[in-house]
Amino acid sequence: MNNSILIIGGTGEMGQWFAKFFKREGFEVTLWGSSQRVDIADKLGVNFASDLDNAIEKSDIVIVSVPIDITEKVISETAPKMKPGSLLMDFTSIKTKPVEAMEKYAPENVEILGTHPMFGPSIPSLYGQIVIMTPISGRCDNWFPVVKSVFENNGAHIEVIDPKEHDKFVSVVQGLTHFAYITIGSTFKRLDFDVSESRKFMSPVYDIMIDFVGRIIGQNPYLYALIQMENPEVLKVHDAFKKECNNISEIVRQQDVESFVENMKSAASHFGDTTSALHRSDKLINSKLQEFDQIAKLVGKECGLVHRYSGATHVGYVEKVKPRHVVLSKPYQKNKSISLKIENVRLLSENELRQWKINNLKHITRDISVFIPTNAVPETIRDVISNNANVVDTEIIDIYSGFENIENLSATYRITVLEDSNPNLIQDEVKKLLEGLGCYPRS
Amino acid sequence: MNNSILIIGGTGEMGQWFAKFFKREGFEVTLWGSSQRVDIADKLGVNFASDLDNAIEKSDIVIVSVPIDITEKVISETAPKMKPGSLLMDFTSIKTKPVEAMEKYAPENVEILGTHPMFGPSIPSLYGQIVIMTPISGRCDNWFPVVKSVFENNGAHIEVIDPKEHDKFVSVVQGLTHFAYITIGSTFKRLDFDVSESRKFMSPVYDIMIDFVGRIIGQNPYLYALIQMENPEVLKVHDAFKKECNNISEIVRQQDVESFVENMKSAASHFGDTTSALHRSDKLINSKLQEFDQIAKLVGKECGLVHRYSGATHVGYVEKVKPRHVVLSKPYQKNKSISLKIENVRLLSENELRQWKINNLKHITRDISVFIPTNAVPETIRDVISNNANVVDTEIIDIYSGFENIENLSATYRITVLEDSNPNLIQDEVKKLLEGLGCYPRS
Repeated sequence: MNNSILIIGGTGEMGQWFAKFFKREGFEVTLWGSSQRVDIADKLGVNFASDLDNAIEKSDIVIVSVPIDITEKVISETAPKMKPGSLLMDFTSIKTKPVEAMEKYAPENVEILGTHPMFGPSIPSLYGQIVIMTPISGRCDNWFPVVKSVFENNGAHIEVIDPKEHDKFVSVVQGLTHFAYITIGSTFKRLDFDVSESRKFMSPVYDIMIDFVGRIIGQNPYLYALIQMENPEVLKVHDAFKKECNNISEIVRQQDVESFVENMKSAASHFGDTTSALHRSDKLINSKLQEFDQIAKLVGKECGLVHRYSGATHVGYVEKVKPRHVVLSKPYQKNKSISLKIENVRLLSENELRQWKINNLKHITRDISVFIPTNAVPETIRDVISNNANVVDTEIIDIYSGFENIENLSATYRITVLEDSNPNLIQDEVKKLLEGLGCYPRS
Repeated sequence: MNNSILIIGGTGEMGQWFAKFFKREGFEVTLWGSSQRVDIADKLGVNFASDLDNAIEKSDIVIVSVPIDITEKVISETAPKMKPGSLLMDFTSIKTKPVEAMEKYAPENVEILGTHPMFGPSIPSLYGQIVIMTPISGRCDNWFPVVKSVFENNGAHIEVIDPKEHDKFVSVVQGLTHFAYITIGSTFKRLDFDVSESRKFMSPVYDIMIDFVGRIIGQNPYLYALIQMENPEVLKVHDAFKKECNNISEIVRQQDVESFVENMKSAASHFGDTTSALHRSDKLINSKLQEFDQIAKLVGKECGLVHRYSGATHVGYVEKVKPRHVVLSKPYQKNKSISLKIENVRLLSENELRQWKINNLKHITRDISVFIPTNAVPETIRDVISNNANVVDTEIIDIYSGFENIENLSATYRITVLEDSNPNLIQDEVKKLLEGLGCYPRS
């Protein structure tokens, strides 16, 4: 029989992601969520635990996937009810407190495994993703290898670390990153600084930084409050950061160039490989600039731009390219001109543009009738016609062999071309090709 | 006669960039640099001012392009020597002090124009770049339109702003950006935080942030010291930033969720369009992930990777993709296997890969002799053969019409294929095509 898995908090986005994942992996999946959204379980084709305690008692694995601030409470209520030989996991982004709670509340014959998936619910698969696990020797000897291999077989990388070490890293990785960006955002407000005006000073490093400031401060503030407040290591990081702020600012105030240089150099030497960091950030900056350059080169030329958020495709000639906008005249859409934010569009590849035209432009057909050479195969000639890039489609609409005194087959080819090309010109090209192959015109 | 331009500090990188630019624009360009690098002027095909004072007196435009901390001094020594009707410009990244110095030291009949090009010397052209100018009414009425149009005709965007306003913006755009990243780098050192270990916790937001930290702290610290110290507005920004650090950290210490939320919300509302910031940063993050996904999809398939720094091209089959590395087995390079950092490589397009193979793989030829249909043109048939994607080249090596009892032309086609394809298979495909066209084999 398959292993059964219960996900508490399974109606949340991460819970749903793992419900689908474990179902695909052959587990018998049951969800529970305080919102009682049975419809979510139905949609995913898994069970909903109408009787939570009963589901806990029966499950081989119980996963706690709830907000950080209630994780310990949920663990304390769940762990004592689990059956011998089963496994309790949590998916919280801190590990010391949840693992301590699991150690405290889980019976000795129930295994425990702290887990921190380093991704959000938008990823398509585990391939290349990182999952942090904090196994404790003697507390998950049977289940750890099983869970590890389920993840690894799907391409994930498992990193094993001590819970306290984990929280120290996370206090910087999430704690300091968010703190710095939120503080910068608050500084803008304190200075009454006009952010959108400041974008005129388009330095790519600044530009990218304020996009991340906007990204962070625009998200759910309660989630960010919890990340700052639930991990006690974060305050130590704040303290270190504040000391450095005061120290460096004082150095600047004293115009003490040598101390500034000394400080920056030793930070660089502690950091380690700054060259790779430079290369990676260069690559990122270039990916922004490259797209701009690509579009800038298209002035006067035809291109297709798909809007990343509305999904609309705009095809036309590039009239003008400004630092943040591209102006397109749209010959297929009533000759209107449209100005698009470059950050919101993606350039269609040549193939995509061709496909768009095939789907959206008028199709025009032309028929060409010829006698084909002795022993030639009409379908081979049809395929050769199709190699013309302007021919969308080639069809044989007639084959006839009954002409008096003529032993050759007659074939009529119908070519389809698009309204933006010149049908007569293309028809002439195809006729010339056919003559070159030894076909001769009928009529 | 052409306008003459003197660039003081013209042997520096920015100076050289503008020397080339103004030369292309038809100016008579002269450089001067304290390093006396006449060779740089020679290489650029412009003059070097052996007598600086004389060059200042003769020039229509003098540009001061020297480090911030000596800009005022250079202005004070240069401005009084300039001829009536000429223009003095500076290219420093702060504007209040240099413009005040130009006002003070330039005679009234010499025009002045503070300028801040918002780009580094690595850009290929001005297209889409921003140049900030701080014209003062009555002090550059003749020259401002001239200089503006030289830049605009090359695709630059000119932003006009008051020098003080400029420095306020720059104190944040450069001052705060650098200060925040340098402080984060110093915090890593203070915490003895293992940056390279922390990359295991690959959250893209963190990953990108530390790359920018490494980027900034790895650069010339003297330059960054000057940017912090020369603009008096920067200290005001430090003070605001330190207050916000203390305030938010205290809120976290007090576990005051509501104040945290309130603060973050009001920062977001001051910031303005956080949605666009989210979209732009998403796009940036995706450009990192997309490349990974693209490479991950190639496991088991052939691909070409060019190393961004060594320039070497590696072609082979993708064996494995790890979060930061791709392992390639290299069948054309003695079957060795190589592990490459994904951040250091660029994936070749299909066309580039094909071109690489054409240049690097052995070429194999096969000859096919046929009688072609009556009136068929040998060259047309050659072109049709070339449509086969595996055929690199098709040549007619013989045409003969003298066969007894046969009126048709005989043609011998030599096809070239690459060693990684099956020449016999391709030869058979081409023969089949030719038969379908009504050709029949000779011999």
